[in-house]
Amino acid sequence: MAILEDDLIERIRRRVPSSVGGALQLGIGDDAAVLRPRGGEWVLTCDQFLENVHFLIDVHTPDSVGYKALARATSDIVAMGARPRIFLLSLALPAERTGRWLDDMLRGLSRAARRFGLRLAGGDTARSAGRPGPLALNLMVLGEVERGRAIGRAGARPGDAIFVTGRLGGAQLGLEIVLRRMYRRREFRRLLRPHFYPSLAVDLGVWLSHERLASAMMDLSDGLSTDLARLCRASKVGARLSETDIPAVVVPPSLQKLGLQQLSLALHGGEDYGLLFTVPRRLAPRIPRVFRGTSITRIGEVVAGREVRLVSEDGHAPRLIPRGWDHFRAAFSFSGRARTGA
Amino acid sequence: MAILEDDLIERIRRRVPSSVGGALQLGIGDDAAVLRPRGGEWVLTCDQFLENVHFLIDVHTPDSVGYKALARATSDIVAMGARPRIFLLSLALPAERTGRWLDDMLRGLSRAARRFGLRLAGGDTARSAGRPGPLALNLMVLGEVERGRAIGRAGARPGDAIFVTGRLGGAQLGLEIVLRRMYRRREFRRLLRPHFYPSLAVDLGVWLSHERLASAMMDLSDGLSTDLARLCRASKVGARLSETDIPAVVVPPSLQKLGLQQLSLALHGGEDYGLLFTVPRRLAPRIPRVFRGTSITRIGEVVAGREVRLVSEDGHAPRLIPRGWDHFRAAFSFSGRARTGA
Repeated sequence: MAILEDDLIERIRRRVPSSVGGALQLGIGDDAAVLRPRGGEWVLTCDQFLENVHFLIDVHTPDSVGYKALARATSDIVAMGARPRIFLLSLALPAERTGRWLDDMLRGLSRAARRFGLRLAGGDTARSAGRPGPLALNLMVLGEVERGRAIGRAGARPGDAIFVTGRLGGAQLGLEIVLRRMYRRREFRRLLRPHFYPSLAVDLGVWLSHERLASAMMDLSDGLSTDLARLCRASKVGARLSETDIPAVVVPPSLQKLGLQQLSLALHGGEDYGLLFTVPRRLAPRIPRVFRGTSITRIGEVVAGREVRLVSEDGHAPRLIPRGWDHFRAAFSFSGRARTGA
Repeated sequence: MAILEDDLIERIRRRVPSSVGGALQLGIGDDAAVLRPRGGEWVLTCDQFLENVHFLIDVHTPDSVGYKALARATSDIVAMGARPRIFLLSLALPAERTGRWLDDMLRGLSRAARRFGLRLAGGDTARSAGRPGPLALNLMVLGEVERGRAIGRAGARPGDAIFVTGRLGGAQLGLEIVLRRMYRRREFRRLLRPHFYPSLAVDLGVWLSHERLASAMMDLSDGLSTDLARLCRASKVGARLSETDIPAVVVPPSLQKLGLQQLSLALHGGEDYGLLFTVPRRLAPRIPRVFRGTSITRIGEVVAGREVRLVSEDGHAPRLIPRGWDHFRAAFSFSGRARTGA
């Protein structure tokens, strides 16, 4: 007699990179996976990707749901300077999504797994209640880092240079287009990509760790203003950013007219999944402008005290208030909230 | 300005065992946790605990939700013969549950963590959408096992003796009382315990691994008939069980009258979280009847072929069909389904 849940797990196993090898001694099909360490340290994190909170089933393609769910979770591993290795997937699925939707989602998930160098080692499936129940993915990711080289948030010191990767606010711009239901318009298609398929600076993170260049690092998940405040709090420092140096997303004039401002998106927009890191002043010249396709921009410096200030061209330096993403402040993620602006 | 999600994480950190030490180099508060291995192997698993699927918010106390969510996930680690060490918690919470409910849930979670020897190393919080949104816990657990000693499902060989721990069907009996809305009746209170607070045979699993006594092992999560079928499939063997040897839960006559049969509960009832393991015949005499408070019963033997048969006192030996728990076969977990009987 067929056991349907086991069949589902077997379908996932066939579609997602999941062979044993390397550190992975035992993978899908047992009670738990078995890892044999090879001298380094393990870095681990987990991240939820929930229908109606992080994605909308009628807007976000199943391919992008699978890709982004894994990219978001892996971003935390990259942000420690570790190389992604293994992941587990928990899936709560309504019965309506166990067919074609699931296959398409697994395709996106597999592409992300191959791109980031990850293998699926196990997981859990459950039917979500409700008609149809909300879909939920939970990704647990493990990475490997050289012993003692993981880069935390607490190491920034006054005088360190502050860097970010990529253009900031691009994912938020894509989300704003989605929230305004303009996502089917051809001229905006390219602008959706950072929201649907975030890219990760895996090799840069590993290089910064190996070369011991970064004093602190984290990923930009909730917006620069919120994430930098967290880094500063953990390091017990402040920061001064140069407004003209912030690498903001380019917003087409038609969208600027709707109130989407480049600087506001760049400062407060979430989900870019680039890296935010600090480098001791004497080492800062070693940071290139581009590393294996990832652009890097110096945006300011760490200072004593606890305040983060944004220095504008005219010399004003107001405090930068965290206005990024916060689940428990936001009314509802996708219900017409203006996360930027104001 | 307060960041509410960070405050929530800080509340969790204060209430749940989460200090760094041992293998845990870096815990809550950074992008990811850092583990330094100590020569053994790591075993990892994840498990979901979902409102309206695995628990009902008006029936299951928050304390039991926290305890059971962690016990279920940890059970997979115990089933590999590993010692539980570290866990991550993903939490999707409606705003209505961030107060007292959360504190009570964390108390149960903490008690389970202390009992099983676990420390919280990180996690993820999100607000669940809907009014009120469904609550979801996702637990990722890591354990440590001596190198090469993890016990999988695939090692059972014909002639091996088959053992189980505890009394089977007790958790299902508790669930049936809940489904029949009789859970407030004083005379049944004691019978609810295995459903609300499953106990795990942590020390027995580690001992079986250390002494190399078990050829295969798994936990009893979905019912003996389903789980033994899985073990046999993984090991490419069959099994013969002795009906009179099955350590079935004792069902009071008043509940037997409602159709709750002891043997049926024991064969098909889920969520006991005891151990099912096989031992080569020559080593079987080394297995005690009780190990540190956990009762152990020999229930049959592994045979060649692929069939599982249940031998009754009169010599009949019908095939044992898997009738345990399956998310994707069940209409809805808590909607009046009779999982046992039939």
